[in-house]
Amino acid sequence: MTADLEATIAAIRPADETAMAAARDLQARLTKPAGSLGALEELSVRLAGLAGVCPPPPPTPATVAVFAGDHGVHAQGVSPWPQEVTAQMVANFVAGGAVVNTFARQAGADVMVVDVGVAIPLHGGSTLLDANVRRGTNDLSVGPALTRDEARAAVEVGLGVAAALVESGAKCLLTGDMGIANTTPAAALIAVFTGSDAAAATGRGTGIDDAMLERKIEVVARALARHRPDPADPLGVLAAVGGLEHAALTGFILGAAAHRVPVIIDGVIAASAALAAAAFAPDAVAAMVAGHRSAEPGATVALAHLGLEPLLDLGMRLGEGSGAALALPVVTAAVRVLHEVATFDSAGVSEK
Amino acid sequence: MTADLEATIAAIRPADETAMAAARDLQARLTKPAGSLGALEELSVRLAGLAGVCPPPPPTPATVAVFAGDHGVHAQGVSPWPQEVTAQMVANFVAGGAVVNTFARQAGADVMVVDVGVAIPLHGGSTLLDANVRRGTNDLSVGPALTRDEARAAVEVGLGVAAALVESGAKCLLTGDMGIANTTPAAALIAVFTGSDAAAATGRGTGIDDAMLERKIEVVARALARHRPDPADPLGVLAAVGGLEHAALTGFILGAAAHRVPVIIDGVIAASAALAAAAFAPDAVAAMVAGHRSAEPGATVALAHLGLEPLLDLGMRLGEGSGAALALPVVTAAVRVLHEVATFDSAGVSEK
Repeated sequence: MTADLEATIAAIRPADETAMAAARDLQARLTKPAGSLGALEELSVRLAGLAGVCPPPPPTPATVAVFAGDHGVHAQGVSPWPQEVTAQMVANFVAGGAVVNTFARQAGADVMVVDVGVAIPLHGGSTLLDANVRRGTNDLSVGPALTRDEARAAVEVGLGVAAALVESGAKCLLTGDMGIANTTPAAALIAVFTGSDAAAATGRGTGIDDAMLERKIEVVARALARHRPDPADPLGVLAAVGGLEHAALTGFILGAAAHRVPVIIDGVIAASAALAAAAFAPDAVAAMVAGHRSAEPGATVALAHLGLEPLLDLGMRLGEGSGAALALPVVTAAVRVLHEVATFDSAGVSEK
Repeated sequence: MTADLEATIAAIRPADETAMAAARDLQARLTKPAGSLGALEELSVRLAGLAGVCPPPPPTPATVAVFAGDHGVHAQGVSPWPQEVTAQMVANFVAGGAVVNTFARQAGADVMVVDVGVAIPLHGGSTLLDANVRRGTNDLSVGPALTRDEARAAVEVGLGVAAALVESGAKCLLTGDMGIANTTPAAALIAVFTGSDAAAATGRGTGIDDAMLERKIEVVARALARHRPDPADPLGVLAAVGGLEHAALTGFILGAAAHRVPVIIDGVIAASAALAAAAFAPDAVAAMVAGHRSAEPGATVALAHLGLEPLLDLGMRLGEGSGAALALPVVTAAVRVLHEVATFDSAGVSEK
C-alpha cells in the first residue's frame, strides 16, 4: 500500500469487463423479472467490475472518514456560521453526537475523524487522527488557498487514510467532511473541472440568504478570474481554489480506486473532490458510488459530469458523510442480491 | 386488538399535532443546519404525530408481510408469466431465496408469507400462514373478482395479521405482495380511487411488451366500464376489480394505522391498497410511509393522490415488499436522529 500520489494514479485500472458480464448474466438468472431492480442491478454490475470478480465482496466493514478543515475565504462573509464551529463539530463527531454518527451506527459503519486543516489545535480521542497540514487555508479570493506542496501533502493524507483503512479490512470507504465555508471552494472546484460558471456551481450551503448567496457567487467568480486554474493540472486547481479537506478527499477517493474498493461519495464537497480525482485518473470513476443528490446545485453539476446517478434524493444538504452513510445499506443490498438470491433453476420457478 | 373492519376504522385517529410540534422544535435544536436533513425531518415529524410522542419509537422490530394471491384476469393474457409462478415464488419466500428475503435480512426485518388467495394448495413451513379465502379471484373483466363477503374476509385477514404482529412486538409493518397478474387489479383500483383513466393507471408490470400493454389497458378499461365501481364504497370496489392480496393489504394498512404503527408502502400493489385504506379511513394516511417510487406509473398516480413522497426512487418494479424493505433503514435513521443527535446546547456548538 502506498500514500504516494503518482504510484497511486499508476495503480488505477479500468473496470473488469469480464466480471461485469458475469454479473449481468447472473442478474438475468435470479428469481425476478429482468431489470426489475432498476439502478441496483447496474450498481451490482459496476461493483463486480471494480472488484474484478462476480459476485463482488459485500461492502462491509465500512468506514466513514470525516476530513475537517478551515477556510480563509470565511473572511469574505460566505457563511453565517462562526469558524469555531468546525472544531466544535469535530468534538461532536468524536463524542458520537452528530448526524453522521447516528447514520453510521444505523448502517453498521465506523466513523474516523481526520484533522487535515482545522484552524484551532484539537485534543481528540482515539477516533481523531491528527494529520493537520496547516491551520486553515488562505483566502482563495485574494491569493492561492494553498501552496502546491501543501495541496499535495493534503492529498497524501487522504491516500494514507484510505490505505490504512483497506489494510485493516475495510471493504468500502465513505467520504465525510467538515469545514465552515467549505462549499465555497467546492463551488470553485466544480466550476473549474466542469467548465460551468460560478452561478451554476454555487449554492446556499447550510442555508444562506439571497444577499449572502450573491456575495458567495461573486467571491467564486472573482477567484476563478484571478487564478484561471487549468483543469488539466488538478494539483494546481486544488492549491489555487481548493481546501485541505477537499484535497484529502481527492486522495481518499484515489486510494479507494487504486485498492479497487468502492467509495461512496457524499455531497457537494465529496463531489468536487471526485472531479479532482477523475482529473488525476479518469478510471477512478469506476470506484465511485454517488450516495445521494445533495440539495446543493453544484453536486448535481459534478455528478452529471462524472456520469454518476445518485442512489438517494432526499433534499439533504448536511455533509459530514451523512448522505454516504445513509446510502450504505442500499449498496450492501445491491451486492447481497448477487450472493443470496436463488436462480430460476435452483428455486424451481418457471420462466416467462 | 381487533380484526373487525368497522371497529378498526373507528379506532383510526388523526396525527397528534402536539407531538409533531415537539419534533419540529427538537429538529431545530439538533447540531445541524435547520432543514438540512430534507425529507427525513418531515418524516420524523410525521412519525412523532403517528406515535403521539416525541421522539417516536424506532421502527424495529419490523416485519414484511407478503400477501399472495392469484387472479382470474390472468386468462386475458395480461402477464407473460404462468400462474403457477405465484405458488413457486411463495415457496421461494419461505425458503428465504427471493429478493425480499435478502433485503429484509439486510434491514433486520422478518418476512412472513400469507396465502390469502393462491390458486394451488400450498405446503409451507412455519413462516407461511394459511389464510386462503378462495383459490384465486374470478376474472374481473367478465364479472366481479370477489363477492363482497370474500373481499371483507380478505381485508380481515390483513387486519388480523397486523394485530398479531403488533401484539408480538412489531414497531413497523412493511407491505409485501405476490400474485401473477396482480398489477391489473391494482391499475383498476388506482383508476377508481384517483379518477384517472385506465391508460394512466396501467403499466408494464414485470416488463410486458407494447401489444400486451395495450391489451392490459383495454382489460382495465373494460372492467371499469362494466362495474362502474363507486370509490365511496371501498369494499365494493375491492370486490369488483380488486384482488385477495390487495384486500388483505388494505386491512393490513388499516390495522397498522389503528395501532399507530408506521406501515411502509412498497410498490403499485401496496399503493392501490393504500388508496382503498384511505377510502375506508382518510386518517390512515398518517401511518403510511411511501418506501419507494415504483417504475409502474400507477404507483406514482396513487402516491400523488395520497400526498405521499417516496423515500427511494431507483427504478425498481419487483414488488414482494422489496422497496419497502430497502427503505426501512432510511426510516430508522430518520427516527434515530431524534433520539441520538446532540443539541447545540448539549454539544457546546455555536449557532449562526
